[in-house]
Amino acid sequence: MNIESFKEVAKQYKVIFLDSYGVLRNYEGILQGVNEMLQFLKEEGIAYYVLTNDASRSPKQLAEAFNSRGIPEISEDKIISSGMIANEYLENKIKGGTVVYLGTECSAHYIETVGLNTISISDIDVDKVDDYSALVLLDDEGFDWKTDLTKAVNLLRKRSLPVIVANSDETYPLSRENVAIAIGGIADLLEPLSEKIFIRFGKPDSQIFNFAYKHAKKDQAITKRDILMVGDTLKTDIIGANKFGIDTCLVLSGNILAQNAELLIQSTGIIPNYICESIAT
Amino acid sequence: MNIESFKEVAKQYKVIFLDSYGVLRNYEGILQGVNEMLQFLKEEGIAYYVLTNDASRSPKQLAEAFNSRGIPEISEDKIISSGMIANEYLENKIKGGTVVYLGTECSAHYIETVGLNTISISDIDVDKVDDYSALVLLDDEGFDWKTDLTKAVNLLRKRSLPVIVANSDETYPLSRENVAIAIGGIADLLEPLSEKIFIRFGKPDSQIFNFAYKHAKKDQAITKRDILMVGDTLKTDIIGANKFGIDTCLVLSGNILAQNAELLIQSTGIIPNYICESIAT
Amino acid sequence: MNIESFKEVAKQYKVIFLDSYGVLRNYEGILQGVNEMLQFLKEEGIAYYVLTNDASRSPKQLAEAFNSRGIPEISEDKIISSGMIANEYLENKIKGGTVVYLGTECSAHYIETVGLNTISISDIDVDKVDDYSALVLLDDEGFDWKTDLTKAVNLLRKRSLPVIVANSDETYPLSRENVAIAIGGIADLLEPLSEKIFIRFGKPDSQIFNFAYKHAKKDQAITKRDILMVGDTLKTDIIGANKFGIDTCLVLSGNILAQNAELLIQSTGIIPNYICESIAT
Amino acid sequence: MNIESFKEVAKQYKVIFLDSYGVLRNYEGILQGVNEMLQFLKEEGIAYYVLTNDASRSPKQLAEAFNSRGIPEISEDKIISSGMIANEYLENKIKGGTVVYLGTECSAHYIETVGLNTISISDIDVDKVDDYSALVLLDDEGFDWKTDLTKAVNLLRKRSLPVIVANSDETYPLSRENVAIAIGGIADLLEPLSEKIFIRFGKPDSQIFNFAYKHAKKDQAITKRDILMVGDTLKTDIIGANKFGIDTCLVLSGNILAQNAELLIQSTGIIPNYICESIAT
Repeated sequence: MNIESFKEVAKQYKVIFLDSYGVLRNYEGILQGVNEMLQFLKEEGIAYYVLTNDASRSPKQLAEAFNSRGIPEISEDKIISSGMIANEYLENKIKGGTVVYLGTECSAHYIETVGLNTISISDIDVDKVDDYSALVLLDDEGFDWKTDLTKAVNLLRKRSLPVIVANSDETYPLSRENVAIAIGGIADLLEPLSEKIFIRFGKPDSQIFNFAYKHAKKDQAITKRDILMVGDTLKTDIIGANKFGIDTCLVLSGNILAQNAELLIQSTGIIPNYICESIAT
Repeated sequence: MNIESFKEVAKQYKVIFLDSYGVLRNYEGILQGVNEMLQFLKEEGIAYYVLTNDASRSPKQLAEAFNSRGIPEISEDKIISSGMIANEYLENKIKGGTVVYLGTECSAHYIETVGLNTISISDIDVDKVDDYSALVLLDDEGFDWKTDLTKAVNLLRKRSLPVIVANSDETYPLSRENVAIAIGGIADLLEPLSEKIFIRFGKPDSQIFNFAYKHAKKDQAITKRDILMVGDTLKTDIIGANKFGIDTCLVLSGNILAQNAELLIQSTGIIPNYICESIAT
Repeated sequence: MNIESFKEVAKQYKVIFLDSYGVLRNYEGILQGVNEMLQFLKEEGIAYYVLTNDASRSPKQLAEAFNSRGIPEISEDKIISSGMIANEYLENKIKGGTVVYLGTECSAHYIETVGLNTISISDIDVDKVDDYSALVLLDDEGFDWKTDLTKAVNLLRKRSLPVIVANSDETYPLSRENVAIAIGGIADLLEPLSEKIFIRFGKPDSQIFNFAYKHAKKDQAITKRDILMVGDTLKTDIIGANKFGIDTCLVLSGNILAQNAELLIQSTGIIPNYICESIAT
Repeated sequence: MNIESFKEVAKQYKVIFLDSYGVLRNYEGILQGVNEMLQFLKEEGIAYYVLTNDASRSPKQLAEAFNSRGIPEISEDKIISSGMIANEYLENKIKGGTVVYLGTECSAHYIETVGLNTISISDIDVDKVDDYSALVLLDDEGFDWKTDLTKAVNLLRKRSLPVIVANSDETYPLSRENVAIAIGGIADLLEPLSEKIFIRFGKPDSQIFNFAYKHAKKDQAITKRDILMVGDTLKTDIIGANKFGIDTCLVLSGNILAQNAELLIQSTGIIPNYICESIAT
């Protein structure tokens, strides 16, 4: 396994897509050397965007969170979230009615920006289901799991609705050792019980990569060969970007430890173009 | 599709295994004609046993629930529950330590009868996991879903433990139209997230049928050909009993409506020997 | 369930994406009224493209097959096949080495057009695996299933390679009653046995829709709202197009019979915007 | 990880259940020291039985194969095969008609011993399906994979039949490095394509363990606590026996290498009571 300098790798590309968790930050905060590297990319004229599976907040709020945690560089226009892809879907496909959501009120506000009415799963009446036009899974907080997951199953058994999973991650890290169950994990519970087929957005699905590609193309003329995706997870960042047809770089600053990287690549068949310790190298 | 009289079918057998929900009772209470049919079986000298996917209470408590709901005939020795199979496993395989459980205190009391210490998932310390010898999923109540399901995932990521699902049903009915998520559904959520392989007890798994068979054999000399399993669900009662090698009777008093029975049998390939309206016919 | 006239539906759009099998043709040949409808679309100035899960032939050969079967209108530039998406992937991501394929020689010729060397699975030596840079599943013919599927499993157990499924359909129709196992079905067999994660192209995956969208945009200025996808299958055509954010029309001239359509839509939650008997209405 | 002497472990039990491949033999023949250990068990008065997922031959033929390969001790009455469990099912549940099989003629002869007529999948007429009473998957040889697997899918789409998988192993070893696809792997392909639910026999399913338990009980009075299952595979031998409630010993002479054992036990949660190098220790 050949470990390369991220600087040397990055210089070969015009655009870098960066995963957030495990690449820019972790449970302790911003990773060391991240600001320096973003500065380096800026000086070299290499554009970068953050691709993140998150539908709990708007892009603006996601950018502000980076700023307040110590990365002043990341502005709203550099954020591509799975929530944005879900919003684009809702705008194109849901023409009226009220959208039921699982998540916080904050996560629902972002949906409302495309002109849709929303109602929390906690507030619906399962016996009056005709007004609802979609169910959207946004966040693992903001509802009572036992009561409201049961409600969601019964709603879907009674009424055929599009179900949108706005973040398909199954877990997210709480600390070095502990994870929490994410809304994508809850989707995996609800889908077979409700016997409906859900629509999932976010890495590894290609629509978020395509959205980011079109976004990056507005700023400069590029092809897929000019882009590098950087991530810490084979099964979301790397396979998704491989499938989309762009080059990939696995960093060992998150999910995957250096001693396991080779084995995991062999055992999954998901092969990054490069492996780097972190983006600070 | 040939609908037969249950009485005529039953008379061909020495032993009847009866599913509980959808056969003896539903969300409104005991089904019409059940007591008369149990009386008929008694008069004809046909033994019967109730095979139920339930680990929330002891067999004694399950019998008492039948009695208090209006079936005085069903005594503790007629009950075969998936919880009994789980208890037999714990007795044979878990030699010490403390068993962590998801469920009510009441469900845990039954486990303690085989001499094991128990602790609720709510009370464990995820950073001190060495004392725990198994995780048992008993009931969907008695814990906080959000907090404690996360705890269960983290416990299993840290420590390799046998995980026993004492009732593999994914849902149970609350009313004609609504279901609740059962502990077997929760198991389907936890298993992939914890990356462990769980052990599931209860129909359709053959161990509960074998347990009931041995139990029935204590009372009289029988072979598998003397037994009829009666159930309202193809995917638990009927396929499980078919696989175990006993005859099967689908009743239309529960899960499956008369107009869908033929289609469901065709589309699953799960074929009962008989179809009856209910056991009261 | 409201059955609409396809003509009236089509007139609301600038671009129509048409599935091939079940929409334009079936096992007996071209469906009645198809040529007249394509003529109508032309006169109305509505562009159309055929989106087909097929990697057994080049777009040119696919167009010729339509021509020889009696649709002279369909030229190569109207064809979008899953094989084209697989080829784009190979061109972007596989920089050298030899690509192993499952399929006919004819299917491999199309891959070679992006400058790659190919070798049939039948001809590889499983003990010399270092030269191979990818495995591509193209067609269910051209190899010996027993010998060569075993070879494919062993190749992938020894060497971590990207595996591309160029057509994810599991079966294809042979007659009104009989199907054949397609290369996507074979992929479902090989993936768990080889313990690798495969990359699947073709409907319902969004990349083929995006490819077609970009292709259609070259001919005129459109947005997603100007496009209608027409298909006979909920689980490929309709859900894929719904997810991509374009309107959808289910036709009852293929897979789904009129009497089952409502039930299937209810039971899957995959909801088309329109339902039409066929495109000839 | 504590590696123990098999002799010391075995002396604590009255009955030993032995897996065949990886415990008694491998692709090169009988493992070293096996005959000596079987002699030792005999002298100590410890009964042993071979539990094997195999439906390609009768127990008599399986015993003869051991004898001819160099283990004279193993007689027919020491063999418990998954084919025997499938045969017991057929005897109890299939009362007439003709049983269609996938496998060799030799494998079908064993089915015929319970009085059933058989026909190879190769010889059936898919348009005359009313005479067939079951489909049994016996062996990966004896039919043309492409033609006859397609036939099997179409048969099951037309006619609702019980489908019995008489050996649920997905692969079997051909050499140190290569595997072959077994009939259980073929079952995994056919089941979703035919949309039927198959009945699988053989480890890890508990019916083979129960069959062996009853068989061993005929020879002496024992309880589950007197039995040790010895196997080289966590996902069949060890989890199946654990679930059945008997003690388990993982040997490192087959599937699992010493350096991976600890990791595999941790990552699956399948925990054997003992680990030994081989049974020759």
